[in-house]
Amino acid sequence: MLALGIDPGTASLGYGLVKEHADGSLECLDYGVIRTGAKQPMPRRLQRIHLEIRRLIEAHQPDRAAVEELFFARNVSTAITVAQARGVVLLTLQEAGLPIAEYKPNVIKQAICGYGGADKAQMQEMVRLLLAIDEAPKPDDAADALAVAITDVHSYRLTDFAID
Amino acid sequence: MLALGIDPGTASLGYGLVKEHADGSLECLDYGVIRTGAKQPMPRRLQRIHLEIRRLIEAHQPDRAAVEELFFARNVSTAITVAQARGVVLLTLQEAGLPIAEYKPNVIKQAICGYGGADKAQMQEMVRLLLAIDEAPKPDDAADALAVAITDVHSYRLTDFAID
Repeated sequence: MLALGIDPGTASLGYGLVKEHADGSLECLDYGVIRTGAKQPMPRRLQRIHLEIRRLIEAHQPDRAAVEELFFARNVSTAITVAQARGVVLLTLQEAGLPIAEYKPNVIKQAICGYGGADKAQMQEMVRLLLAIDEAPKPDDAADALAVAITDVHSYRLTDFAID
Repeated sequence: MLALGIDPGTASLGYGLVKEHADGSLECLDYGVIRTGAKQPMPRRLQRIHLEIRRLIEAHQPDRAAVEELFFARNVSTAITVAQARGVVLLTLQEAGLPIAEYKPNVIKQAICGYGGADKAQMQEMVRLLLAIDEAPKPDDAADALAVAITDVHSYRLTDFAID
């Protein structure tokens, strides 16, 4: 089972691909960020996000996708910008025919660290341990995306057990 | 010159097509709303918006497109939902290779009614008069989209004069 996790954004959108092996171990296949230039018009930035995610899907052929839900108490204009990118992400995943899950930030923290109030450093260290990689994935957006993908693998596993 | 105006939304997205004739008169070619079911998953709703706008562009072959900017002081979760749809709209217009303009609500009111504080009824009546149609266009989202298209025609006209 291969899950694509996405941490939405416009300037920097994180992605991570996590494979679950038959023995339940996790492997990080790829991670990184899609960057778009702040000087480019927004429609072109959104198109770049669309094309890059499509390219990722074609290259890795994931079975599932998961996207972090947005939670903004403060800055509405930032929320609007990120949500525009998130809309394009959801469309692109839908066009690829992938099952799409959405997880709230505290649910992701709960899934990775065991409690919803975990901080960034704890999250990155747990992601590193769960994926058995030597160094914590950078930058933050990519680490967040891997956390989303791991959450999805866990969630899928639980659903799987529930059906049995 | 044919302008496609869009008032973004998820449950109901308004569109309007306004043609400017050589003598400067305006004609309303089409208007309406794209509705998506609240019970459908968001990715599917966004895909429907994408496909319907693409169909509109193919059917009418507009020269330009314009989208209302979002302004939300209050409800962040509504802002996020509408912004996701707006992101898909911008992507779809960009994919069609259209020049894309974005106008703030008060700029649209200024362009249509002459002042930025115009109310809904004044806007609808002015849209009706400018397009020389018998009845005010319904529903509101479609009337708003026609107002966006008219604003774009006016703005293009002004730019045109400026270049001469």
